[in-house]
Amino acid sequence: MRTRNKIDLNSDVGESFGTYKLGMDEKVIPLISSANIACGFHAGDPAVMRKTMALAKKHEVAPGAHPGFPDLLGFGRRNMEASLEEIKDYIAYQVGALQAFAAAEGLSLQHVKPHGALYNMAVRNTAIWDAVAEVLSKIDRSLILVVLAGTNREDLLSIGARHGIRIAFEFFGDRAYNPDGSLVSRKEPGAVIHDQDLAASRILKLVKEGRVEAMDGTQIELAADTICVHGDNPTAVALTGKIREILTASGIEIAPLGKFL
Amino acid sequence: MRTRNKIDLNSDVGESFGTYKLGMDEKVIPLISSANIACGFHAGDPAVMRKTMALAKKHEVAPGAHPGFPDLLGFGRRNMEASLEEIKDYIAYQVGALQAFAAAEGLSLQHVKPHGALYNMAVRNTAIWDAVAEVLSKIDRSLILVVLAGTNREDLLSIGARHGIRIAFEFFGDRAYNPDGSLVSRKEPGAVIHDQDLAASRILKLVKEGRVEAMDGTQIELAADTICVHGDNPTAVALTGKIREILTASGIEIAPLGKFL
Amino acid sequence: MRTRNKIDLNSDVGESFGTYKLGMDEKVIPLISSANIACGFHAGDPAVMRKTMALAKKHEVAPGAHPGFPDLLGFGRRNMEASLEEIKDYIAYQVGALQAFAAAEGLSLQHVKPHGALYNMAVRNTAIWDAVAEVLSKIDRSLILVVLAGTNREDLLSIGARHGIRIAFEFFGDRAYNPDGSLVSRKEPGAVIHDQDLAASRILKLVKEGRVEAMDGTQIELAADTICVHGDNPTAVALTGKIREILTASGIEIAPLGKFL
Amino acid sequence: MRTRNKIDLNSDVGESFGTYKLGMDEKVIPLISSANIACGFHAGDPAVMRKTMALAKKHEVAPGAHPGFPDLLGFGRRNMEASLEEIKDYIAYQVGALQAFAAAEGLSLQHVKPHGALYNMAVRNTAIWDAVAEVLSKIDRSLILVVLAGTNREDLLSIGARHGIRIAFEFFGDRAYNPDGSLVSRKEPGAVIHDQDLAASRILKLVKEGRVEAMDGTQIELAADTICVHGDNPTAVALTGKIREILTASGIEIAPLGKFL
Repeated sequence: MRTRNKIDLNSDVGESFGTYKLGMDEKVIPLISSANIACGFHAGDPAVMRKTMALAKKHEVAPGAHPGFPDLLGFGRRNMEASLEEIKDYIAYQVGALQAFAAAEGLSLQHVKPHGALYNMAVRNTAIWDAVAEVLSKIDRSLILVVLAGTNREDLLSIGARHGIRIAFEFFGDRAYNPDGSLVSRKEPGAVIHDQDLAASRILKLVKEGRVEAMDGTQIELAADTICVHGDNPTAVALTGKIREILTASGIEIAPLGKFL
Repeated sequence: MRTRNKIDLNSDVGESFGTYKLGMDEKVIPLISSANIACGFHAGDPAVMRKTMALAKKHEVAPGAHPGFPDLLGFGRRNMEASLEEIKDYIAYQVGALQAFAAAEGLSLQHVKPHGALYNMAVRNTAIWDAVAEVLSKIDRSLILVVLAGTNREDLLSIGARHGIRIAFEFFGDRAYNPDGSLVSRKEPGAVIHDQDLAASRILKLVKEGRVEAMDGTQIELAADTICVHGDNPTAVALTGKIREILTASGIEIAPLGKFL
Repeated sequence: MRTRNKIDLNSDVGESFGTYKLGMDEKVIPLISSANIACGFHAGDPAVMRKTMALAKKHEVAPGAHPGFPDLLGFGRRNMEASLEEIKDYIAYQVGALQAFAAAEGLSLQHVKPHGALYNMAVRNTAIWDAVAEVLSKIDRSLILVVLAGTNREDLLSIGARHGIRIAFEFFGDRAYNPDGSLVSRKEPGAVIHDQDLAASRILKLVKEGRVEAMDGTQIELAADTICVHGDNPTAVALTGKIREILTASGIEIAPLGKFL
Repeated sequence: MRTRNKIDLNSDVGESFGTYKLGMDEKVIPLISSANIACGFHAGDPAVMRKTMALAKKHEVAPGAHPGFPDLLGFGRRNMEASLEEIKDYIAYQVGALQAFAAAEGLSLQHVKPHGALYNMAVRNTAIWDAVAEVLSKIDRSLILVVLAGTNREDLLSIGARHGIRIAFEFFGDRAYNPDGSLVSRKEPGAVIHDQDLAASRILKLVKEGRVEAMDGTQIELAADTICVHGDNPTAVALTGKIREILTASGIEIAPLGKFL
């Protein structure tokens, strides 16, 4: 059993585009410790990236890149038959673009978390995690790669070790898990946990005990470094605030990955 | 009168996109000392950027960014009513994206030269040069800003000084100049010099004597650090080769800006 | 003095894109008689166009195209140095795309109103109105071209006559007018009228008397066929409802352009 | 055994974009009877569409739409996890856009042939052919849907019948076939036939005898209405010319689908 007294809270931000607004970044950024900033392929644009970086700086939240597929129309949520070479190029381009906005604020990027379909495809195909780790190691070895916590922990750690890149494991408090440690597909009933108290208590248990209850009632062991929280709407922001409170009240420190990984 | 024994040759490269090929990069890159690499807004894409960076490394050519307007359809050649804020954001985004590909090759960017309409708008509106210098100084003070050589040399140098950025002045051997040191508009007859021998001799004179003959026969003084050459087609590549030969035969060393500025 | 007992109310709709929502189309479409539907260049996408067309059909509102510049990032609000040929091609493409969604619902497009910077550039350069009328006449002569009502009414009517296209004149109730019948620039103080009662009374006067009070107190004559109303937010929708009520209460019939032009 | 004395030759054209040129449209269009014109999503742009339509008119070639996925970077060749609803919307949008350019030339579109990954996904999933036929029937029932000739001929004909749309079957002379009538995957050795004489003779046999020899030597029956030929490069254009000659010399008339289907 693995326990921690520190945990990271991460959220996807900077998803507005041009005249289009999405997410309550001003509300959620003060509540988190790591910000996954969209980089212009599936969401975000240069001005939004600049403003989001400034918000992260203001609230002392560690900035990271949230690169996705070049599919603004589909918000990067549709699988694309991209080659590993293409994926590495897309990651490099987007991470670099965001690094410039970090540099302009005197900051460095802490982490990279692939977005949407790219993340989901990597979860099902470890070769993608390997490709992402490889390209990050070439750009900047201090970048942390955020992956889904699951049973293939050792495989992912060895990918990180091979490329000299730290790996951070992510837990979803509002998602049901299969007994094998994978996420229940969103197409299944019960995949998303809407009960806020339940979500908060699952997070607390994960952080304190390193365990989560699977769909079938099994207790599974999961070690996570960061919890994905949301800021899409007032309800999501309220839940994020509640999670933060419960964790803090339980003596858990909310801190960016780079501080403890 | 200003003379040099070193000069830089720069060319716009990396302008292919997806399945579309443009320019003879493999031929022209070995002939130049600085490469202006498109960054995906008006031309170029992540894979093209990676390959062009590798070509620059192979031939020991200094890589630079060639950022343009977000107008792939118009190849960045159409004026857009973008604000200075928008321009700075576009520059930061594109320079950062290319920096990642440089870093992946163990290189740093040497310079930034705005492309097409963005360059032309800056030539007519110094506030744009100022904005570009400002954003570059925030990203990386070692970046050299390439501007059009002309009579406002002192203004541009003071912009560079204010932001702590080196300024490089560019000369076009194949373009006619007005007596005031500005380029003759492409809409005017005689704006583009098609006679290769004439173009080559104008470049040699500029480098050796710091002077160019204007449309009306006047001799004007122009101090330039870099000559823009082309690689669009076999004729352009041949001219670039010829220019290189003539300069070298005259005891002028072809060297990247960063080596002598 | 020109008076009418029928007037059209038009509004810009279908401006959402992908996951991004913009405007309260479900609320404003039932209140208007003509819908200007974005066509995917500055806003809108194929799914949004289909859904907006279905909404127009449901509420028996006449559908029209709202083509703009290919500048999603700038929402088509930035001037672009596009040639007349390029403008005609952009109009043809976007009008055609929307026609397919109209056809799929058993409808035809009633009108075309250029969007944003394209509209504003046409207001300042009649050659653009001429180019738009020309391309519409080639695609479908039953299309009505919506232009800004002003003092160049005769010029615009003759453009329409030359190309065999009907011209509809548009009035903005929430915008101040110069004594020469042009719109006060948004950069000037007082350009936008925020007082809802005032906006409504100006519209009523325009419709009943064919006159509007200019910034300097002058009464100017303006003949308009359609009033531009808004549905961006609850306040705008409320004002549109109010305008509709006042007009109806005054015996003015709200009807699509095609019914009376 | 099915034989014909008429056959259609189709080719993918209008694939240039902005400053980027692709294909030898001026050379190949005079040799074919049906032109598949790209519609701006994977290739093509409004100006290219206009010019290609004019070329088709000049050479009395029947114009058709070649709609693809919104993936210019990947030239529409990468599978995308688009829903049937999204596919129908993409087809409607692109077909409509091209119809406007046809109308401006006084022409109507003859056919629609999905491009690249969209075509390949439809070949493996008949529900996509059904969706395309459905949306075409809503836009214009005179449009012919071009599909891959194979053993599921009856299924595809019944889809056409259900939606009131004519179906045309396409044969590839330069591709190897499996014994079940499907195309050999491009990943397999021998999938593409580079021997021009062999390609030409296979086409002649297909047209005269309704049969093709599969990879394993089996003779399979295939009924095709149109042959896909190419114009990408001088060799492809030469082969297209040769195919045309051989067919004509054998008494086969080259005619657009709409003339005999």
